[in-house]
This record gives sequence, C-alpha cells and structure tokens, in this order.
Amino acid sequence: MSTAQHDITSTDNRDRRNHGLDVLAKIDGHAGTAVIDSLAEISPALGHHVAAFAFGDIYDRPGLDARSRQLVTIGILTALGGCEPQLKVHVGAALNVGLTPDEIVEAMLHSAVYAGFPRARNATFAAKEVFDSRGVRPSSATSPD
Amino acid sequence: MSTAQHDITSTDNRDRRNHGLDVLAKIDGHAGTAVIDSLAEISPALGHHVAAFAFGDIYDRPGLDARSRQLVTIGILTALGGCEPQLKVHVGAALNVGLTPDEIVEAMLHSAVYAGFPRARNATFAAKEVFDSRGVRPSSATSPD
Amino acid sequence: MSTAQHDITSTDNRDRRNHGLDVLAKIDGHAGTAVIDSLAEISPALGHHVAAFAFGDIYDRPGLDARSRQLVTIGILTALGGCEPQLKVHVGAALNVGLTPDEIVEAMLHSAVYAGFPRARNATFAAKEVFDSRGVRPSSATSPD
Amino acid sequence: MSTAQHDITSTDNRDRRNHGLDVLAKIDGHAGTAVIDSLAEISPALGHHVAAFAFGDIYDRPGLDARSRQLVTIGILTALGGCEPQLKVHVGAALNVGLTPDEIVEAMLHSAVYAGFPRARNATFAAKEVFDSRGVRPSSATSPD
Amino acid sequence: MSTAQHDITSTDNRDRRNHGLDVLAKIDGHAGTAVIDSLAEISPALGHHVAAFAFGDIYDRPGLDARSRQLVTIGILTALGGCEPQLKVHVGAALNVGLTPDEIVEAMLHSAVYAGFPRARNATFAAKEVFDSRGVRPSSATSPD
Amino acid sequence: MSTAQHDITSTDNRDRRNHGLDVLAKIDGHAGTAVIDSLAEISPALGHHVAAFAFGDIYDRPGLDARSRQLVTIGILTALGGCEPQLKVHVGAALNVGLTPDEIVEAMLHSAVYAGFPRARNATFAAKEVFDSRGVRPSSATSPD
Repeated sequence: MSTAQHDITSTDNRDRRNHGLDVLAKIDGHAGTAVIDSLAEISPALGHHVAAFAFGDIYDRPGLDARSRQLVTIGILTALGGCEPQLKVHVGAALNVGLTPDEIVEAMLHSAVYAGFPRARNATFAAKEVFDSRGVRPSSATSPD
Repeated sequence: MSTAQHDITSTDNRDRRNHGLDVLAKIDGHAGTAVIDSLAEISPALGHHVAAFAFGDIYDRPGLDARSRQLVTIGILTALGGCEPQLKVHVGAALNVGLTPDEIVEAMLHSAVYAGFPRARNATFAAKEVFDSRGVRPSSATSPD
Repeated sequence: MSTAQHDITSTDNRDRRNHGLDVLAKIDGHAGTAVIDSLAEISPALGHHVAAFAFGDIYDRPGLDARSRQLVTIGILTALGGCEPQLKVHVGAALNVGLTPDEIVEAMLHSAVYAGFPRARNATFAAKEVFDSRGVRPSSATSPD
Repeated sequence: MSTAQHDITSTDNRDRRNHGLDVLAKIDGHAGTAVIDSLAEISPALGHHVAAFAFGDIYDRPGLDARSRQLVTIGILTALGGCEPQLKVHVGAALNVGLTPDEIVEAMLHSAVYAGFPRARNATFAAKEVFDSRGVRPSSATSPD
Repeated sequence: MSTAQHDITSTDNRDRRNHGLDVLAKIDGHAGTAVIDSLAEISPALGHHVAAFAFGDIYDRPGLDARSRQLVTIGILTALGGCEPQLKVHVGAALNVGLTPDEIVEAMLHSAVYAGFPRARNATFAAKEVFDSRGVRPSSATSPD
Repeated sequence: MSTAQHDITSTDNRDRRNHGLDVLAKIDGHAGTAVIDSLAEISPALGHHVAAFAFGDIYDRPGLDARSRQLVTIGILTALGGCEPQLKVHVGAALNVGLTPDEIVEAMLHSAVYAGFPRARNATFAAKEVFDSRGVRPSSATSPD
C-alpha cells in the first residue's frame, strides 16, 4: 500500500471509503451520503476522507457508542460556531441513534455554560430546523400555535 | 428553593425570569422580547436562562453601566464571529443605551487590531443592517447616493 | 427577589449557591470546591455564578445524565482550546461519574475529526495529567516503562 | 505627520491608501475595490485601513511572494470559520496570482487535519462558488452532469 | 511615500512608529515599550506595526476614549482565549486609563454570558496577576488571609 | 479490510502508519517521531491517526509541495491559537523543507491582518524558541546583544 497510500482510487482506499459509507448510511441514511456526493463535484478527496477516515476509521471504533459520539460532536460543533450545516447533519444523526429532541436541546443549553449563550442559541435554532423537517419537537417546547 | 432550583416553572424562577425580562425590555424593547419568545417554541429553558441569568443576574449588576456592558459585548461578539444575529440585537441595544453609530463602528475598527479585519468587517456590515433599519448612519459615512 | 436579584449575599442567592456547591461537590469532590474558593480572592461574583448558575441551575437539570453532560463538556472544551485548567477539572469529574479513561481518550480522538488534531492532542495530554495523578490509564496505552 | 496620523483625509494617508488600492487592484481586480467601496457607506476608516495597512503596508512587503501570502491567508480564513465573504475574495485572488483550483482545494483538504473537517468543507464550498463564477474546476472534480 | 511604503526604516514610517510609541507609552508606560523591544530580536516589522498601526493609527483615533477602547479590548481578548500575555498588558493599561479593578472583573464576569465561563475564568486569573503585581484588588474580593 | 478497518494493529493499518512515520521522519526528523512516541503512553490510536492519516494519507499527497503545506499549516495554527506545541513542530518542519526564518516571521506578520496581532505575536514568539534552539535568526532581527 505504501507506494501510493494517498491514491484514493486504489482498491484499498476504495474498500476503506466503502466501509465508511456503510457506517455513514447506517447512522445518517440519505443525508450523509448526500454530503459525500455534493463534495464529488468540487473535492473528491475531501469526500473520500470524510467517508474513509471520519466514518470508517474513527466513528466505527468500538470505544464509544454512537449516542456518546453524537453528544461529543454536538458539543464540538456548538462550540466551534459557523458549522450549522454540519450541526444539522449531526442533529439528524443524533435522532437516528436514539437521542431525543429533549436531550439534544438540553445538550445545547448545557453548552451555554462553557461556550456562551450565542453559540447555544445558534445551535438550538439549527436543531429546530431539523426537528421541524422531521415533525418532532422537544416535549418542553410550547406549541407553535 | 433547593429541592428544585432547576424547575423553571417555580415561583422563584418565574420571578427571576420576569425581572430579567424587565431589564431586557428596558434595554432592547421589542427586539429582546422577540428573542425570548422565539426560543419558547424550541427550548423554553434556554429562553428562561437568557432572561433570568444573562439579563436578570448579570446585566442588571451595578458594577458596570449599560454603555460599558455594550462595549464589552460588541468586542466579544465581533471576536467570536458567526454571531451576527446576536450582534444585531446588541447593536440595537447599544444605540438604545446611548452609544452613537460613530462609536459603534469605531469599536469594530478597534477590533480589527485584536481579532483581525475579517471579523471587524463582518461585524460592521451587521451594524449597517441595524443602522439602516433605524434610519441612522455614522457621521463619517458617505451618503449612499 | 426582584429588587436585588443580582445581590449575591441575599438569602435566595446564598441558597442557590449552596445548592450548586452541593451538586459540584457530589461530582467533583474537593477539586470543584477549590475552583470556587480560588475565585473568592479575585471575583466572588464569578465564583457565585459558577456554583449557582452552572451547577445549581444547569448541571442539576434532569434532562441529561451526568455522564452525557461530561461528554458534551469534553467536546466543547476540546474544541475551544486554551481551556486546559477546566478540561482537567472535567476529566476528573468524568471519571467520577463513571466514564472510563478509554472512553475519555476516545472522545478526544473523535474530536480530531471535527476540531482538528492539535486540539485533540492538547486535550489528550491534559487528560494524561489527571490520569497520572489518579493512577489510572487507558487499557490501550502502552506501559510507561 | 504625528499631529494627526489618524486623520485618513491627510495627504500622507491618502497616498498610503492609494498605494494600497493599487496593490489590491493588481491582485484582485474589481472584487477588491468593491470591498473598499462597500465599506465607504458605513465605515470609511475601516475601508481606509484595509487598503492602507492590509494591502499597502503588509501585502506589498517583499518577504513573501503573492502565492505564498494567499496560501497563508487560505489557511487562516479556513481555520477562523465564518469568513466566507473574505474567503471568496481570497480564493479569487489566489487564482489571480497563479494558484490552481487543484492547489486551492488541496490546501483546504490539508486544513482538515489541523482545523477539522467542518471548517475544511465550508471553505471548499466557498471556493466552489468562486470557481463556478469563473468557469473553472479542479481537474480531480467529477463533471456535474 | 508609495515607492516603499512597506519600508519600515523610511522617515515616514519612523515618524509613524515613534508617534505610536508615544501613544503606547502614555497608556502603558514601560510594559508597552517592553513588548515592542522584545519583538525587535525576532520580528522588527511586527513590532513596527504594533506601534505604528495599532497604537499610532487606531488607538489614537478620537472616536472612542481610552476607557472605552480598553473595555472593547478586554471583551475581545477574553473571548479569543489563549491571549493571556496581551490580556495582562491591557489589564494594566485599563488600570492606567481609569478603569477600576471592580470594573475589570465585572467586564470579565459579563463575558461569561457570551463567551462562556472558562474564558471568563482564565481572563479573571490573568487580571489577578496584574492586580497582585500592582498591589490592588477589587473591593468585592475577600482578603487573601 | 472492512471487518476491522478501525483495528490499528492490523497489517494494513501498520503499513499505513509506517508509511506515515516515514513521511513524518523525512520532514521533521526526531521531533516528529517524538510526538507519536509521547502519544503511545496515553492514546496510541491518536498517535496512529496522526501518522497514518495526517502524514501518510494527507501530507504525502502530490497536490501541494511541502513548502506550501507548511505555509498553510502556519496560517491555521497561528489563527487557532493555543497550539504552540504544534506550531513549534511545524516551524521546525518549515525550516526543514526550505522556508527561511524571514519567510516564517513574514507569514506570521501577514497573519496579523486576518487573525489579529495577539495571535501573530504568540506565533512569532513560538517561532523564536525554535530558531533559538537551532541557532538561526531572521536577517531582519536585531542582534540580541
């Protein structure tokens, strides 16, 4: 492998990428695959490494369950700011792996302590868009009408 | 209070929240209340703590006048980046507590030294939107026509 | 309460603070209380709000278990960078609420995907200091000798 | 000069600004000048310092060629996040000074290692908008149809 | 000036730098000059631009008084994190231009709302070092013994 | 490979890691290998991915020469802040791949425009430590005695 480890068209890298795509599809369904597809028109290598490295190498590791990984990810993306597209993908993934809308907005409220209220609020509104598109709501939220 | 300090429906927390809402209304008028209201449909607890903690506990403290608090806030939000919604609320609040449009854009120019020109520029254009909606302009700005 | 909600010496605020200190002591033991004590000599109000707000109001909320809160917190502090003192307190707290050393370093490896390798590495070495002081190690780590 | 060094209408400062505008025009053509013009209606002093300091004083220094400056700039803006408007200007400038679309997306892929995948992805999509408007594409990108 | 605007040894740039050094000395006394001197052994041009641009061009502008500039600066440096050396210089400068220790720690407590508690705490302990070296303390702080 | 892509002890992953270590050794000599070794006692998986992914998969890609990669990296690490350990490794690597001390401090001065002076100054002093340990200096720097 070492002569062209970086060659994303090699059989080894195709296998790594395909395994990552399987992990991603299991968590995210169509949303995840769409992210990789949209990268193909501008940076296939970035798409490759999101699949092969982020999902195939890391996300699939047995050391943390999917629910825990999503909690860490929500904390990071809320703190970074400016990652609303990624946050929406991961809020969707969080719902898929069993986190409830109440837990997700609670994690974002918790983030206000460490990353400040503006980051927490922006993350919460990104979550709202995902919840709305899925027809779910935190039980604590008031009815919109 | 201690058995359910976190219960935002308790009388104590309602009092804390209402006091914060009063502080917020005095500074921000409708814009501030709208922020809390918009949170109610997704995370009432986040809205509660913006009112009760951020405005009732902190903003209302006597140690710094409102003008000084807004200068600190503009510095923070400019530096963080990606907080344009909050920056617009606080530019409006800054005008309400007596900062002039010239002082606000000057604070953002000052920020370029410490947080770089891109953050300063983004903050300045966020301020422009607020100024335009209020029909005010820095005296140094050229006439748009 | 509203006439002096900000007065941290009031009975109400003392109760809120004491409740927060109880929550903190349960999670962090002496390390947490030491943080508040060290703040008293420079900013008692900051110490009050860490106890009353961060721990009494937020951490104690029932919406997320302590393990989940620590996972979110580790994600945030890793992503922010420059928060090594806080990270050490929360790595200690994470151990106290049942996260294993393996899970903690796994969460930090996971962070490399979203916040980059430098932040993940700095967090991991902060964790190492806590592990060393407690005499624990991830099972995957090589023996130091 | 010292009695009013800050006076941006002085002859000295007009000269500094005009020189910076020349540097900017050589790199960016109309896009750069448009940035300065758009600032005139809100903060002429910010526009002055972008031209006089950023381009006249710094960018024009002989210590690094334009290609190298754009690589550093792309790294910074990708890492900061929330600087998509500036990133688009500098992706355009990068093309103007001879970086290829392949090199630009490669620099952003490289950024994923240090600043995480979300920042790298956001930068890459900002680059795509510039490439699309110029009718160029990385050679590695798949055809959109 | 335009043929070598970037030449920091020119008479014009020496004048700009000297004026900036005067502004800096008035605010910061020896601490400020020491910052420029320490840069001379590694990057004289960076030292030049701190003096000529940051202090000569920007800090000296009449649009905001020194007290207001320090409040903005404290907000920015607290939010950025990892800027403890700069924060200490500016806490010293803040004292010099008339902000009290109580106002400075209050500004940092205020920052907790927008930038989170870890950044506020780190800034507060940086301020404590400056206060200790000057033999001043917030009136609210408990006596150390 | 897919049944245990995440297993860092597999032959495939050992090959990927060893290739990355070769790339790293060529750029960084002992400094780079020391980083991986120091991680083995706390998070071997993090060390594996620094070698296999960061160096083997990404750094070794042909799309950008090593000099360009180091310029991007210096921009990112300067902008992120709090990455002084990594910055020192990469300043050393930058010297190894042919960037001069003058170019490195120039890149950091350039960063002041986009990321602010505090980040630029901190990066410059980190570079100074590396230069001192190697007995090199920018030609523009004043003699220390």
